[in-house]
Amino acid sequence: MTHPHAPGAHLLMDLYDGRGFDDPAVIEAALRAAARAAGATVLSAGFHHFGTGAGVTGVLMLAESHISIHTWPERGFAAVDIFMCGEAQPDRAAQAIETALRPAHVELTRVLRGHSNHALQPSR
Amino acid sequence: MTHPHAPGAHLLMDLYDGRGFDDPAVIEAALRAAARAAGATVLSAGFHHFGTGAGVTGVLMLAESHISIHTWPERGFAAVDIFMCGEAQPDRAAQAIETALRPAHVELTRVLRGHSNHALQPSR
Repeated sequence: MTHPHAPGAHLLMDLYDGRGFDDPAVIEAALRAAARAAGATVLSAGFHHFGTGAGVTGVLMLAESHISIHTWPERGFAAVDIFMCGEAQPDRAAQAIETALRPAHVELTRVLRGHSNHALQPSR
Repeated sequence: MTHPHAPGAHLLMDLYDGRGFDDPAVIEAALRAAARAAGATVLSAGFHHFGTGAGVTGVLMLAESHISIHTWPERGFAAVDIFMCGEAQPDRAAQAIETALRPAHVELTRVLRGHSNHALQPSR
């Protein structure tokens, strides 16, 4: 671990009005590009297309946690999660997602996981 | 969708000092119990154990989004994500996770995904 008190950084990206939200090939390419950009190791991949014109669900399981996406093309919306521990670079993954899917608008929420005082200061 | 403005509710659960964090069978059973409790449909499952005494990574891909877990048994820590859209009941899934893994302490963060004003009020 780079940060002894940080099992992981979790980026929640809400994407609006991007491209390829109904195309599983575009979605899988975007997630794999994100993993490469972050320097993460893919353990396995799963993608599901809910039908022509419908949404895509996909997950890359990483040695460093995971990247997931769920798309709602009928709403122009996609929810991406980038959760990485160790030496991986989640911000580079987020940039790769934006480059691949070109959303008009992004809302990014950053959550540090495993930071409770309960864990850091168990004796207090 | 139940809520026309809500593609999904995302529960981030940080669990401290639970059981089975190094046991992939316990972890998979916990996630499957959570999916059942929520009334969610499992599309596929992937679990990876990083070795004896080490952590487990697991994801259930759902018709309603996903449930994931990453454990760090050496820190007594596990990060669970429950992301569900539609009629599924993510709070019931969270309760099932607690019942299965019995953490001494839980930190729960609730994030509504896809709620940007950008999407709700595009003309403003």
